[in-house]
Amino acid sequence: MAASGARTAAIIGGGVIGGGWAARFALMGWNVRIHDTDRDAERRINEVIDRARAAMPGLWDVALPDEGRISFHDDLAEAVEGAEWIQESVPERLDLKHEIYAAIQGACTEAAIIGSSTSGFRPSELAEGATRPGQIVVAHPFNPVYLIPLVEVVTGPGTGTARIDRIRSTLRDIGAHPLFLRREIDAHIADRLLEAVWREALWLVSDGVADTAEIDDAIRYGFGLRWAQMGLFETYRIAGGEAGMRQFLTQFGPALKWPWSKLTDVPELTDELVETIASQSDAQSGRRSIAELERIRDANLVAILRGLKARDWGAGRLLNAAERRIGGAPRSLDALSLTSPLPTGARAVPLDWSDQNGHMTEHRYLQAFGDATDRFLALVGCDDDYIACGHSYFTAETHIRHLAEVRAGARIEIDTRLLLAEGRRLRIFHRMWEDSRLVATGEHMLVHVDLESRRAVMPPPELQDKLARVAKAHAHLPEPEGAGAAVGRPPERQPDPQE
Amino acid sequence: MAASGARTAAIIGGGVIGGGWAARFALMGWNVRIHDTDRDAERRINEVIDRARAAMPGLWDVALPDEGRISFHDDLAEAVEGAEWIQESVPERLDLKHEIYAAIQGACTEAAIIGSSTSGFRPSELAEGATRPGQIVVAHPFNPVYLIPLVEVVTGPGTGTARIDRIRSTLRDIGAHPLFLRREIDAHIADRLLEAVWREALWLVSDGVADTAEIDDAIRYGFGLRWAQMGLFETYRIAGGEAGMRQFLTQFGPALKWPWSKLTDVPELTDELVETIASQSDAQSGRRSIAELERIRDANLVAILRGLKARDWGAGRLLNAAERRIGGAPRSLDALSLTSPLPTGARAVPLDWSDQNGHMTEHRYLQAFGDATDRFLALVGCDDDYIACGHSYFTAETHIRHLAEVRAGARIEIDTRLLLAEGRRLRIFHRMWEDSRLVATGEHMLVHVDLESRRAVMPPPELQDKLARVAKAHAHLPEPEGAGAAVGRPPERQPDPQE
Repeated sequence: MAASGARTAAIIGGGVIGGGWAARFALMGWNVRIHDTDRDAERRINEVIDRARAAMPGLWDVALPDEGRISFHDDLAEAVEGAEWIQESVPERLDLKHEIYAAIQGACTEAAIIGSSTSGFRPSELAEGATRPGQIVVAHPFNPVYLIPLVEVVTGPGTGTARIDRIRSTLRDIGAHPLFLRREIDAHIADRLLEAVWREALWLVSDGVADTAEIDDAIRYGFGLRWAQMGLFETYRIAGGEAGMRQFLTQFGPALKWPWSKLTDVPELTDELVETIASQSDAQSGRRSIAELERIRDANLVAILRGLKARDWGAGRLLNAAERRIGGAPRSLDALSLTSPLPTGARAVPLDWSDQNGHMTEHRYLQAFGDATDRFLALVGCDDDYIACGHSYFTAETHIRHLAEVRAGARIEIDTRLLLAEGRRLRIFHRMWEDSRLVATGEHMLVHVDLESRRAVMPPPELQDKLARVAKAHAHLPEPEGAGAAVGRPPERQPDPQE
Repeated sequence: MAASGARTAAIIGGGVIGGGWAARFALMGWNVRIHDTDRDAERRINEVIDRARAAMPGLWDVALPDEGRISFHDDLAEAVEGAEWIQESVPERLDLKHEIYAAIQGACTEAAIIGSSTSGFRPSELAEGATRPGQIVVAHPFNPVYLIPLVEVVTGPGTGTARIDRIRSTLRDIGAHPLFLRREIDAHIADRLLEAVWREALWLVSDGVADTAEIDDAIRYGFGLRWAQMGLFETYRIAGGEAGMRQFLTQFGPALKWPWSKLTDVPELTDELVETIASQSDAQSGRRSIAELERIRDANLVAILRGLKARDWGAGRLLNAAERRIGGAPRSLDALSLTSPLPTGARAVPLDWSDQNGHMTEHRYLQAFGDATDRFLALVGCDDDYIACGHSYFTAETHIRHLAEVRAGARIEIDTRLLLAEGRRLRIFHRMWEDSRLVATGEHMLVHVDLESRRAVMPPPELQDKLARVAKAHAHLPEPEGAGAAVGRPPERQPDPQE
């Protein structure tokens, strides 16, 4: 845990936000000293850090540095002494913050950066009466701080370019994105937007148009999906079509004057403002055509939706419900002929399964085969209900042969041959087809396990009987080409793998 | 393509929205008849449908029904005759819409549902002067219609419960989520929220606080990520902590009165309104503790962020930039000892790599091995620059042995032994470790290919030389346990796989 020579951050004020900052610094290898007057702070902060340990390191495909040392300090001066970054996250009371800054500045170095997590105050308010006003800046994060990259930064006139450069590089070093405001304003940027939505949402509840769950659905099944990947202006640029933002403003500008919200103070869409917005949008997104932005947006949405589908949450939960209605896969052996391999999959290759060239990525073949294994097992009686009762099959071994490339969007089908059902073991052979073209095979050894002990155990007689029925029928099928092969050796040179 | 016996939808007015509706219906197996007076409509709609064909079917892990028949009709009556659902998406002019409804109602059945894609009009306005007012409802979708599930539905007093049931089931049948408004209101729900944000954003640009790109970043790096999976109220419920929504309203309620936006007409937070919101939030999310909601939120965010990382877009692009700064993986053979397998991976197992029980999913082992293969190749000179010049290695064959389970969050390391480098072929052997425990092995045959012709070709001499150097050194290492094995047969019974 200890990281000697590591950089040091001080966290003043715990809670969810302070704890989130502590986690982000520590997991990026910084030593973190925490000061909070609340006796419960240590427990609460440790809970946040535990959540961060579970979620944050896996964001990247490389290992993070060794975690820094986390310590709790009753004495504020001890916490901030020599710290490179000091983050204040105490309650939103200006008098309290002023008191804390005085104590911090009495003990920290001149070079230290003092960031405030304030949602609403401006740096000029925060730095009133401070010894070194330029040292105090707004660094406003978003919950959960260890996952959401945005940090709004607002500096004062005395901050200086050298310090600004260090703020930028430090926040990037801990995997955050510093968004520097051009000038100070109450509530910065994001909270102004949030506040606008929040007020409108309160009116909708107050007026009985929708309840909180319905308003949340309007967000997470709708524009929330868009905003996770493109913001307001880029989304509207697409809506405007090839003519872009000028077109959009001309088309939808008048709606601003309509009574579409309770909030009616509207900026005048002067020629100048239209020109400002349109040219900023050109600078932001103009190097890509609308068609290109649409393709990017669609691929992003598919990735987000499929990520949520795997978690069975939000819009992903809707997809799973629709999938059950679509059905498609046979659910019972009785409806199937056993004189040919069993149909265990038919699907389109999703956009998020492909590499930059549009070809299906290596591990997605195994994902498709894994789904086919699940369907095969369900057919022989090892379905969700069976698994819920405490037994299942685990894959012990896999052999994949890639025979032809498959592109995103292609419709593939999988059939499955049972090669062996003996005791605790099952050997199956999947074939993946695109039309009549065999594109890959997957051979798998599975073992029946007790999910409590995680050990191999015999399957019950009913399961053995069903497997024996399929095995007996499939024994009449020709040995599939490629079964029993080792990597790099042609299978025909092998002895009978079933021995 | 043709689907006899399929259900029929009519799309009146093309463009992006009409085209999106056409795509959603057709890809769910409906026959779709399109009427648009614009001569360019057919081209534009076909572009939308092509995008939908690439993106929508892959949302699900089962095959969709066969695509319905899509036809274009100059005659509106011909398009709507006998159609079960008629969707109007013409420009937002009430006189035009009234004219169209008259024509539709003159030709469609009484049972047909007439949905309007209107963003702003209420059903009572739409149905003014209509023959059968209850037949006309708002069905307001979101772009891209074929991916975003939300459809806001507003019915009139004459709609009737039977028709409402059919609206609900039909929209679900095409994979959409109908959100029924409790009463009609200008701009429904989502557009009121969007309008509030849009106005505030225009003020921010107009006042020079931020430009369009910065505002978009404030959304897509911040609350947009949250809103893709939980909405406003559920997110704030978490912020309120265990005490929930009442606590949040007490804590943050006063901020509503602060000058945090240009828009200051605020609903009074009476005891009654607080109670309404708090009890609605309890009904929405109360069956889960805050700690449970936090875990769910974190796992969802990891899935979304990693989805975006694979697309190198938005917050995912930030992750890739941070990963390059973190570094970690060795980039040159010169820094490495060749007397042991090469280090080709060190990482935490991400939350989105695990199943419901927290164990790493089968195909993610291959994803980790695939990444290790890429790092091995980069070390021997087949790096991004080399691949950009038109050659690479493709995986032809894979053999994975699962030796122990790995949990989400675990730190794993991979090392790689070169078993064979001969002509166009490479055979490598990965070992995956959690601490000193061997959890899986992956043996892979790779083939050097020309990315243009997609055919196997000889690697250039420089690459061959580097590979020979590693192969020569690795030949002194003991044969790794498990190399050369076929599925289900102990490797020690095999002849030397290198022959």
